[in-house]
Amino acid sequence: MHFGYDEKTTALLAQASAFMDEHVYPAEPALHAELAQASRDDMWDIPASIADVRQKGKAAGLWNFFLPGEHAEYNGAGLTNLQYAPIAELTGRSIQLGPQAFNCAAPDTGNMEVLHMFGTPEQKEKYLGPLLAGEIRSAFAMTEPDVASSDATNVETSIVRDGGDYVINGRKFYITGAMNPNCQVFIVMGKTDPEADRHRQQSMILVDRDTPGVDVVRGMHVYGYQDRDHGGHAEVVFRDVRVPASNLIGEEGQGFAVAQARLGPGRIHHCMRAIGVAERALELMCVRVKERTAFGKPLANQGVVRDWIAESRVRIEQLRLLVLKTAWLMDTVGNRGAHTEIQAIKIATPDTVNWIIDKAVQAHGAAGVSQDTPLAEMWAGIRTLRLADGPDEVHKNSLAKAELGKH
Amino acid sequence: MHFGYDEKTTALLAQASAFMDEHVYPAEPALHAELAQASRDDMWDIPASIADVRQKGKAAGLWNFFLPGEHAEYNGAGLTNLQYAPIAELTGRSIQLGPQAFNCAAPDTGNMEVLHMFGTPEQKEKYLGPLLAGEIRSAFAMTEPDVASSDATNVETSIVRDGGDYVINGRKFYITGAMNPNCQVFIVMGKTDPEADRHRQQSMILVDRDTPGVDVVRGMHVYGYQDRDHGGHAEVVFRDVRVPASNLIGEEGQGFAVAQARLGPGRIHHCMRAIGVAERALELMCVRVKERTAFGKPLANQGVVRDWIAESRVRIEQLRLLVLKTAWLMDTVGNRGAHTEIQAIKIATPDTVNWIIDKAVQAHGAAGVSQDTPLAEMWAGIRTLRLADGPDEVHKNSLAKAELGKH
Amino acid sequence: MHFGYDEKTTALLAQASAFMDEHVYPAEPALHAELAQASRDDMWDIPASIADVRQKGKAAGLWNFFLPGEHAEYNGAGLTNLQYAPIAELTGRSIQLGPQAFNCAAPDTGNMEVLHMFGTPEQKEKYLGPLLAGEIRSAFAMTEPDVASSDATNVETSIVRDGGDYVINGRKFYITGAMNPNCQVFIVMGKTDPEADRHRQQSMILVDRDTPGVDVVRGMHVYGYQDRDHGGHAEVVFRDVRVPASNLIGEEGQGFAVAQARLGPGRIHHCMRAIGVAERALELMCVRVKERTAFGKPLANQGVVRDWIAESRVRIEQLRLLVLKTAWLMDTVGNRGAHTEIQAIKIATPDTVNWIIDKAVQAHGAAGVSQDTPLAEMWAGIRTLRLADGPDEVHKNSLAKAELGKH
Amino acid sequence: MHFGYDEKTTALLAQASAFMDEHVYPAEPALHAELAQASRDDMWDIPASIADVRQKGKAAGLWNFFLPGEHAEYNGAGLTNLQYAPIAELTGRSIQLGPQAFNCAAPDTGNMEVLHMFGTPEQKEKYLGPLLAGEIRSAFAMTEPDVASSDATNVETSIVRDGGDYVINGRKFYITGAMNPNCQVFIVMGKTDPEADRHRQQSMILVDRDTPGVDVVRGMHVYGYQDRDHGGHAEVVFRDVRVPASNLIGEEGQGFAVAQARLGPGRIHHCMRAIGVAERALELMCVRVKERTAFGKPLANQGVVRDWIAESRVRIEQLRLLVLKTAWLMDTVGNRGAHTEIQAIKIATPDTVNWIIDKAVQAHGAAGVSQDTPLAEMWAGIRTLRLADGPDEVHKNSLAKAELGKH
Repeated sequence: MHFGYDEKTTALLAQASAFMDEHVYPAEPALHAELAQASRDDMWDIPASIADVRQKGKAAGLWNFFLPGEHAEYNGAGLTNLQYAPIAELTGRSIQLGPQAFNCAAPDTGNMEVLHMFGTPEQKEKYLGPLLAGEIRSAFAMTEPDVASSDATNVETSIVRDGGDYVINGRKFYITGAMNPNCQVFIVMGKTDPEADRHRQQSMILVDRDTPGVDVVRGMHVYGYQDRDHGGHAEVVFRDVRVPASNLIGEEGQGFAVAQARLGPGRIHHCMRAIGVAERALELMCVRVKERTAFGKPLANQGVVRDWIAESRVRIEQLRLLVLKTAWLMDTVGNRGAHTEIQAIKIATPDTVNWIIDKAVQAHGAAGVSQDTPLAEMWAGIRTLRLADGPDEVHKNSLAKAELGKH
Repeated sequence: MHFGYDEKTTALLAQASAFMDEHVYPAEPALHAELAQASRDDMWDIPASIADVRQKGKAAGLWNFFLPGEHAEYNGAGLTNLQYAPIAELTGRSIQLGPQAFNCAAPDTGNMEVLHMFGTPEQKEKYLGPLLAGEIRSAFAMTEPDVASSDATNVETSIVRDGGDYVINGRKFYITGAMNPNCQVFIVMGKTDPEADRHRQQSMILVDRDTPGVDVVRGMHVYGYQDRDHGGHAEVVFRDVRVPASNLIGEEGQGFAVAQARLGPGRIHHCMRAIGVAERALELMCVRVKERTAFGKPLANQGVVRDWIAESRVRIEQLRLLVLKTAWLMDTVGNRGAHTEIQAIKIATPDTVNWIIDKAVQAHGAAGVSQDTPLAEMWAGIRTLRLADGPDEVHKNSLAKAELGKH
Repeated sequence: MHFGYDEKTTALLAQASAFMDEHVYPAEPALHAELAQASRDDMWDIPASIADVRQKGKAAGLWNFFLPGEHAEYNGAGLTNLQYAPIAELTGRSIQLGPQAFNCAAPDTGNMEVLHMFGTPEQKEKYLGPLLAGEIRSAFAMTEPDVASSDATNVETSIVRDGGDYVINGRKFYITGAMNPNCQVFIVMGKTDPEADRHRQQSMILVDRDTPGVDVVRGMHVYGYQDRDHGGHAEVVFRDVRVPASNLIGEEGQGFAVAQARLGPGRIHHCMRAIGVAERALELMCVRVKERTAFGKPLANQGVVRDWIAESRVRIEQLRLLVLKTAWLMDTVGNRGAHTEIQAIKIATPDTVNWIIDKAVQAHGAAGVSQDTPLAEMWAGIRTLRLADGPDEVHKNSLAKAELGKH
Repeated sequence: MHFGYDEKTTALLAQASAFMDEHVYPAEPALHAELAQASRDDMWDIPASIADVRQKGKAAGLWNFFLPGEHAEYNGAGLTNLQYAPIAELTGRSIQLGPQAFNCAAPDTGNMEVLHMFGTPEQKEKYLGPLLAGEIRSAFAMTEPDVASSDATNVETSIVRDGGDYVINGRKFYITGAMNPNCQVFIVMGKTDPEADRHRQQSMILVDRDTPGVDVVRGMHVYGYQDRDHGGHAEVVFRDVRVPASNLIGEEGQGFAVAQARLGPGRIHHCMRAIGVAERALELMCVRVKERTAFGKPLANQGVVRDWIAESRVRIEQLRLLVLKTAWLMDTVGNRGAHTEIQAIKIATPDTVNWIIDKAVQAHGAAGVSQDTPLAEMWAGIRTLRLADGPDEVHKNSLAKAELGKH
């Protein structure tokens, strides 16, 4: 057992950290200003600060860290999950810019993994290459507004074979990134066979955004935020959308399995970044309470504030280690072998990080809920992780069932 | 001891409830649509649905309930605090429309009380009359971005006598309602004598919004929301703003005392309404979980969901009783005699209500954080109450000190 | 709506409070010493301090407050539940002595209510009279070690008719008071007809403790305590215990209904007293933190300690009001009409009170967990209320079901 | 970074685990019975089951694992802290027997470390040898009843030089193990120079228990428990206790430094074992809920119970990793370098483990608070860790101060 990062990680972390200091944190005010100035007409344009930082990240070779293993042909970084974890955390410190700067932002990362694992050579060439090159973006359309989507058997979108095509009908929402002008392709989950076994009813299919019948209806809000930095979260309707059968990912009925394969890495990436969010919030809290004075002493000397700070540190340390161990398990025994740990961090992370951010908000007074600190928006983003990819309750139930089986 | 509402309250509640059913709840979708459609240019216009419901509320005589005591001359309702409490709760069920419909919305209510208690006849005629008639709106400018404003000695805005005028300089933020086009006057807190005793340094003064030097800089956000239904929360700069000395409220040095007199009722009104918010959230949660099915049974049959519902009910019942008792104390022993209880509900209410709303959010899945339910916006609004009028920590410290003094 | 106690209550409270000051609190050290000195042989003897304070309470006419309504023939106090509530709270401040001093201790109170409501004239004469006179004590035997007793259909004890007798077989535990030498009778819950409808299978029957076949096996512990002040909590085995058929309470199959009738008042009495426990703990905490100094200032000046004190006061005030309202409902709409509120206080009280006691423990350092303060024992006693008369989870589930039915 | 145990640990763990299965768990009922049968006269005798298991542990060579480093001369195991951690956790699963079986029980372990680090050759020969051999036991006398002992400057016990002797006067309590008949020596903390610098006033000194003037007054309780398995927790008075000057540990004024050196390892050992306690509680909870049925389904199928189980697992996993990392830091950068992490686990562990045990109690119903499961006693023992070696609040304050210094 050993708790230090290896040499490769340490070196890369230093390089990425320098990049963050030089290019990412300084770009935050500019991004903030751009987003504030946007009007109804240009609100979904890609902010120049985002485009700029991505260009710089790619030029610096700080790119595609998320993709595990060696893939020289794919412009990948050849990191293990464990090596990627601290880098992902680092990007989370500037959550709007960091992950995009290194082409490590959801949902592209998960989509690239799906294409890498399950894509045909043609699919890889058409979509995976450009995604890895950062030339296009993508979205993942699973959640539906009309059903409890955590239960995959509830999915109502249909994918029906018709000659050499599939025809797709359904309504999705919270399709992250769909309003990014560069978002050119959706991976859509639907049912090809509602009569099949519970986990063999679903399939996934690639749909170009400009296919007739694809209607991006509106941007969904997250506690008042629209997340325009990365293309928001769309409601999308698919009406008789026709795509060639070759767009199917894997086989018919393999949709649930693909989703599972996608979600493991997706979940841990969210957790890694969320720890960076927590560190940033704790840092902001510490700085603030040293500056402010009330009733004759700095807030930093108030016992209750110190309690928040101590608890924040204690919780972050525990959480990070479990995330790192989970990454290590994914590397050593595979995503399936790390199933319980992935659930555990999915359960623990948003709750812990939201607790910390909320204390930081409180320590900032009214500024904490405002647009003048990133805290309120951080909180809203992390809050959604208690729902995204399945609500806490579904994961707890499943984890408990496994635990009960051991005794 | 008796726990039933009196006849007057019961009758008025029935009348107000019928009004809510007929005019307020049905106007929610229209308000929602109006706010969503606004562009950058007309975003602060008063929504037609708000104007309409106010007109109807006034016509129905459901108006100015908040003002305690009999004031025939003021178009008041002549209720006690205890009688007002359930009405205020009722309005909180539709938090954007209800309080405005009955001319019972903050910050006007507090401002009217200040004018009623401390205003000169001229001030009353010019400001209080139109406010009670609902013809104008007002704002209250106390919080400053640069200091911990919970400690009144930190206030940096200066109010300096110059001949027959006062000259005001300072920066305020989270000035609620300031962007409402009808908002015609600010009550501004500042220091007239920084050398006086701790609680005699501050004064309050009336400032017409169109006075030269008043600069409404921008709307502050609350977790991404701008609260455009009621004029938002502004940052306002006062640069050499000159007003006649007769605009002073009370005497020089009385600002802290006026603030205290204003805050007691203001706090309990927030708490009354917040209980209505909680009831609405609980209702939405119950309806939702009966409709949704996951993994073979309705969410309403899941043990964890039932735990949320039971806890919500148990907490609301306790909280409401303390709010009602506080109102009764204000009526019977005065605001000062109810000081500890006012602090207690100020501490307990936002925390309890946010807990309940958060469970309702979780029960709704992604819809809970979206613009399709009022839950996320409710949560954000209630969250600010842990900071507004002094953060929890200040009130807890003070309440504990009083408790320690008893033993 | 009115939040003051009526004149009768106020007068009685003053009288009871004076009695507590004169006779009850001063007896605490003596009781403590007696219990500490007992050996294995005399450990279940009635402590002289208990006997003494009961004699004084009876002599002072401070007796049988718990029994609602006028019962001149029964030496009752003729109070409503609402009038009794603050008296019961007062006795809870000295939980080992107070309730016994006024003949208001569980389980006698519930047993007397059962006899009062359902007893035959003979049963009343033989048992109720002496209980009201404080000449004998009693126990209530419902919980069984081998099944989840919150579900009455699980009860395994059998009560079988045999000629003019009933024959009882079964095992019970946590039978409070059973080792009190004065405990002369048990009310035993068992099944007379396992084939009947779910809630008609059970009956209750009176069993004299000296009946052959009754075996008081051992005293059960509560976090190491044996609660010897009131006769502990026994495991009792009934082996072919034969009693006359006239010992049946009510009719065959009425056991569940009797239990429900008994539990409502029993639960609220526990809650009333628990609030007194909380007040005592808060008082002890305040006194302690003013006395102790660490790192240069009194604990009373530490922000975290003040947070505990404020939260304690805020929670107690809310809880007490709900208990009082529940009492009022029981008086005005009956126990059945107060069903939801009784569940609510059953859920809220132990959790809240344990939270407060735990903070008081922490504020006392090692002394808090010791025999030198009553805190640790208070905590253990209150903790059991989350299990006694049904665990929290059963009540929450039921309350939630009712709430769901309203929407 | 690597999260697997090394070969030595794995092998030793298997051996220790087999020993637990064969000798420790099976001895639990016997120990339980012995302790239950003890009378007032023999209550502090060493239970035969304890003596037996210690003999077996020593014979098996499973002995003194706690002492870090290679000490062939001391019969030590030569483990690192990291290697010891899982062994200590394992012993915690049977908290009354496990640590004693392997001569790894507090306070002997800490005392042995002190002697190892600071003892003179004579002190080592007289005390350390027999302690490592398990022939004698020891106690550590720091906490005083009359002051907040977390602040070392409060210590009131005096150690005064008088010729070739020191004379000790003072009162201590919660002196663990002092009533064990084999306990032959106390390490006593007191002040040699109340005028010196804050952290140079204290010294430590060895006092044979049979020295005239040493008065073991009584056993302190822990929530009703006396912890007789290991010699309880005594109140001890030192009246003019005279010992040779050579009994001083280190130098005059070094007491605080020695205490700090002792407490780091002591704290992590408590944490390691506490994780074993948590695992045992979780196991008991899982077994129980699979066996019990209420309202038609096993408790294991209740959503709320599953929530408890999942949360327990999630929390344990995080906590264990932080304990392990702390051990690794102690091994690699020393106790001082691991200071923050030691504080962090001291803060996190008791709170987390008590939460888990409390859920297990609740899942057991009345049996959970009884002597029929180890849960209630586990809870009480772990609860004291929030006070022992400094209350949570002191550690949080200190950790927060360090965190603030980083920003």
